[in-house]
Amino acid sequence: MSALVQTTLNVELGDRSYPITIGERLLARRELLEGTTPARDVLVVSNTTVMPLYGEALKAALGGRRVVEVVLPDGEVHKTLATVSRILDVLVANRFGRDACLFALGGGVVGDIAGFAAATYQRGIDFVQVPTTLLAQVDSSVGGKTGVNHPGGKNLIGAFHQPRAVIADTATLRTLPSRELRAGLAEVIKCGLIGDAPFFQWLEDSIDRLVACEPEALAQAIRRCCELKAAIVGRDEREQGERALLNLGHTFGHAIEAATAYSSWLHGEAVGAGLAMAATMSQHAGFMDEREVARVEALLRRAGLPVVAADVRRDDAIAAMRIDKKAKAGRIRFVLMRGIGRAFLTADYPEDALAATLASRFAA
Amino acid sequence: MSALVQTTLNVELGDRSYPITIGERLLARRELLEGTTPARDVLVVSNTTVMPLYGEALKAALGGRRVVEVVLPDGEVHKTLATVSRILDVLVANRFGRDACLFALGGGVVGDIAGFAAATYQRGIDFVQVPTTLLAQVDSSVGGKTGVNHPGGKNLIGAFHQPRAVIADTATLRTLPSRELRAGLAEVIKCGLIGDAPFFQWLEDSIDRLVACEPEALAQAIRRCCELKAAIVGRDEREQGERALLNLGHTFGHAIEAATAYSSWLHGEAVGAGLAMAATMSQHAGFMDEREVARVEALLRRAGLPVVAADVRRDDAIAAMRIDKKAKAGRIRFVLMRGIGRAFLTADYPEDALAATLASRFAA
Repeated sequence: MSALVQTTLNVELGDRSYPITIGERLLARRELLEGTTPARDVLVVSNTTVMPLYGEALKAALGGRRVVEVVLPDGEVHKTLATVSRILDVLVANRFGRDACLFALGGGVVGDIAGFAAATYQRGIDFVQVPTTLLAQVDSSVGGKTGVNHPGGKNLIGAFHQPRAVIADTATLRTLPSRELRAGLAEVIKCGLIGDAPFFQWLEDSIDRLVACEPEALAQAIRRCCELKAAIVGRDEREQGERALLNLGHTFGHAIEAATAYSSWLHGEAVGAGLAMAATMSQHAGFMDEREVARVEALLRRAGLPVVAADVRRDDAIAAMRIDKKAKAGRIRFVLMRGIGRAFLTADYPEDALAATLASRFAA
Repeated sequence: MSALVQTTLNVELGDRSYPITIGERLLARRELLEGTTPARDVLVVSNTTVMPLYGEALKAALGGRRVVEVVLPDGEVHKTLATVSRILDVLVANRFGRDACLFALGGGVVGDIAGFAAATYQRGIDFVQVPTTLLAQVDSSVGGKTGVNHPGGKNLIGAFHQPRAVIADTATLRTLPSRELRAGLAEVIKCGLIGDAPFFQWLEDSIDRLVACEPEALAQAIRRCCELKAAIVGRDEREQGERALLNLGHTFGHAIEAATAYSSWLHGEAVGAGLAMAATMSQHAGFMDEREVARVEALLRRAGLPVVAADVRRDDAIAAMRIDKKAKAGRIRFVLMRGIGRAFLTADYPEDALAATLASRFAA
């Protein structure tokens, strides 16, 4: 294993700009963690899986402050307003003020819940993302989207609230179950498909090393994804335009998750299938050729990701999509592709293209 | 009664700027209401008191759109996360998209709850404030503070989310119970005390007309308060500095409300007593002379407002203040006065000044 260089990127948002630091064993770097916040009162939010692995390291790095912790049950089913309310209760019970800081230690679910609690406690307190899954390191910890699910749909309740810093310690990925690592690769592949064909090609060359959890390959992939996302968020923080491209694969993916009650599919797995579906729909709409769709599907398969949703009925999928946030005045908008690396948002597509995609990728 | 001129002020916040329109019978002005939002899906949030009085007028003015309504029980005790959740359920059940708009028709409680629901539904949708109480017209509908109470303290959960427009129809004040009108006058008096000694003097001359609900006097008072608040919010939207002055009287006031479980005091009544307490504390701290404190107390009494909290024990008050948002690193910050119209924020005061204030204005 070669020595990994620590790198720092910035998300440029004026007085809300913040650094993303990516590297090996960052949780052991006390001065790095200490520098993220001057807060004397800190709440560490994590879950029953991650806290035993990395809680002590984080708390040690934050030594000298008052550190309170909330350990949530693990899993997307707990990403609810009730869980946020529980965190708020702890903040109130410990009389944390506006100058407190919350640390989200875990994957995307922990980050989304904890971020929303930080967004709404006393109309917004600081928080720091310490993502410990590949999905969180490449995607959900960056950009300030926070929130929880509603029985009627994913992420329907939330807020934009930027973290003060993101600390992505690649060493934490070595305790990640391989199913979760693969799920994270869906968001990595998504980045190439959105706007970086050379990166997609690099992924075709490197996918076996990524699946094998090779640190150097992972660090390169994480860095490239964070660069892409930081640039887009810097230009369009609140998803008025370009940022919507980051939802490539997500309209289908969210529908899969909602139709299965967030219980059997990991978010990244649903996004993986959603990418295959977006490619197929792009082909049916005449935007993308068959050969490129085959490349997308082949890469997803090599990453161990699903490309169909055989356990979801197409009627349930379409019902879930209609309540999805991206529905605009009744018409479902999709991010489609004019080719690998050329994603675009549109509500202008033949209904046949959607119907054919549903027919080929979902259950009848 | 003389004819009232309709006036419009702007809150200047770049691309989130919005107009405040003040005048008689604005709810009958269909083009005014229609112009506030292009949304085709509208949710009107009101309560069991206000909806029967003004719901039909508002819905008629919004004709031609899909209008859904949520009618909440009346009262501050319902300003909870559970009530917000109920509104979110209605938005989801009706499949409202990001382009929907919420109308808050009612007093400060309705506006705070509905605004927070708008802030958190799909990470923020548009909303319009239609305040029907004096307190809401002069204070809570302007400036984008939204949120709900927690058993541990007032407004501990919330977000900054600016409305698209504020429509203050002074005709609605004629159905307002006189107790609520007087409660609203506390926020009016607060405006003079913060930064406008001539306005305070005008209030001393005009208080009887205001208590008698004379429309022209009320419209003048509302306009002046909105001007002051719009200017402060335009300079300091997120309360990093100057905006904290608007909390004059509120640290004491919130403590009174919390200690009485938001059940027996109206918010404005608690603020009224809080203003008297802030004046007393300013005197004990050597900032304000006795004669000016007497003027403050006299005006509050003429407005029919309480100046002591005889039903709240001082220990309960201090406990409630410590969890209040304005506590900074353990030390309670207060807005005090160097005289009428010269408020300032400080954590630098003799403990004796606070103790003497608690001793004279609360129960032992």
